[in-house]
Amino acid sequence: MKQHEKFIKVIISGGVHGNELTGPYLIRKWHESPQSFRRPSLQTQMILANTEALLIGRRYVEEDLNRCFSLKRLKGRGRSREMLLARQLNEALGPKGSLQEPDIIFDIHNSTANMGCTLIFGQISDTTKALYAELLLQEPRIRLYYMPEDRDVASYLPTIGKYDVCVEVGPQPHGTLQAELFFLTESVMTHALDLLEQINTSTFKHTTTEIPLYTHYKNIDFPRDEDRNISAMIHPERQGKDYQELKPGDPLFLDFQGNTLKWEENEVVYPVFINEHAYYEKGIAMSLTKKSIVEW
Amino acid sequence: MKQHEKFIKVIISGGVHGNELTGPYLIRKWHESPQSFRRPSLQTQMILANTEALLIGRRYVEEDLNRCFSLKRLKGRGRSREMLLARQLNEALGPKGSLQEPDIIFDIHNSTANMGCTLIFGQISDTTKALYAELLLQEPRIRLYYMPEDRDVASYLPTIGKYDVCVEVGPQPHGTLQAELFFLTESVMTHALDLLEQINTSTFKHTTTEIPLYTHYKNIDFPRDEDRNISAMIHPERQGKDYQELKPGDPLFLDFQGNTLKWEENEVVYPVFINEHAYYEKGIAMSLTKKSIVEW
Repeated sequence: MKQHEKFIKVIISGGVHGNELTGPYLIRKWHESPQSFRRPSLQTQMILANTEALLIGRRYVEEDLNRCFSLKRLKGRGRSREMLLARQLNEALGPKGSLQEPDIIFDIHNSTANMGCTLIFGQISDTTKALYAELLLQEPRIRLYYMPEDRDVASYLPTIGKYDVCVEVGPQPHGTLQAELFFLTESVMTHALDLLEQINTSTFKHTTTEIPLYTHYKNIDFPRDEDRNISAMIHPERQGKDYQELKPGDPLFLDFQGNTLKWEENEVVYPVFINEHAYYEKGIAMSLTKKSIVEW
Repeated sequence: MKQHEKFIKVIISGGVHGNELTGPYLIRKWHESPQSFRRPSLQTQMILANTEALLIGRRYVEEDLNRCFSLKRLKGRGRSREMLLARQLNEALGPKGSLQEPDIIFDIHNSTANMGCTLIFGQISDTTKALYAELLLQEPRIRLYYMPEDRDVASYLPTIGKYDVCVEVGPQPHGTLQAELFFLTESVMTHALDLLEQINTSTFKHTTTEIPLYTHYKNIDFPRDEDRNISAMIHPERQGKDYQELKPGDPLFLDFQGNTLKWEENEVVYPVFINEHAYYEKGIAMSLTKKSIVEW
């Protein structure tokens, strides 16, 4: 049996965005029945990150909390509510890059896009590869989305931890709950804790296998007019088709006069976060990934 | 040929809720090509109702504008931004109950629920019955939802007009656009204007026919705990099944432990607005209607 790293300090967070409800409701449920998340070898802590945003049912109060956790911003002078909150969370959970940092953070999000249950991560090791692959084998609705980024620069809350996992669940309109996605998320998080316990107790069994991995390529915006208004929508043939192949010449957008705009680049890509509500303000119509088959 | 009322002053409004984008984008398009909405016998005006809410991408700034148009509230002392805006709109478009009031107002909304293209109306006449029935015959995704209510008491913007039509389009997450729903809405509004022109010029032809009508029965809330938190979600078998029969004993909610809660009343009903995001804060999980076949 392979020698694996140990995962002791584990964080499950929800409510980083105050209008994404699956995480907060799962955490509320698990707080009421602690046996659901306790494992002998793990020190698991669950947190509701942005309670003020949750109270008003909005993504954030002043700025996106999940863009505040780069070392530069944590050490900077920003004084927004979310920036102050980010520093508090970093002190309480980490701090990032210190000896006290968590071994792994699972941060539960929702998307209006058809993300299924996507695990997005920036840091990987042989052990986390095996962990994510094993989760995927147990739950086919899981997708693995690799977003390689220097941890110091990465601005997402889970990058406080040595290993970061954004659990992105959808499609679900923000501010609502869908029962199937709630139980899918609970099942995935339960499996993850079980597997971490197995890793720590050297009972984890995984046979390296070929799995699909989607690696971040780039974001693309909607077509816009001179006033920055959107001048075309996601094409109906692309809407909801996250993780499906986009080939050169395929329909991508449809303008308000009914004209189709095609994917013009000479690349086969796999779009995700298609028509995610929160990304309209960020100038992102979808993220493009490249698919590879890896032996994990 | 039947003698019909005339419809001269016609309003099409959008953006009453600042995060429902189909109406505002349709109005923007039509403002750029006025031939799309001009008809010889009609004086059609298009308005973006709550521009401040549109700018911040939220349903409203201080309160729901579409609950401000009862005569009592219009004449009352409320001083919220939306209440002041409601009085301005009432003066500019109506005022409600005066000789200058519009003949008909179409107010375009979006819902996260699977509403298709629902026409919701409180005031009816033989002519509007024929109009709505003819629209339904031309577009099967239309549903007719009758919400009988005294006009003075009704608090919706379109009740400024003699006849009120809320055009409720979904499913669409708030703050996003779906191309198919955009073009469906444009098609329905184009048909409506064409038919009004035919009515005014006595060229409207309609043969009374049997059509389904959904009449408002009552709203029901989510099950809640003692702290008013939601304690169950829409049952997966009910999610997205707007306008489908709900019989006594059918699954209705699913709690967080996985227990099914059934529809216990001894009534066959047809739920709509199932899991509409904006109604979470109003304490409405869905609206129940009764279906009848009418000769319109």
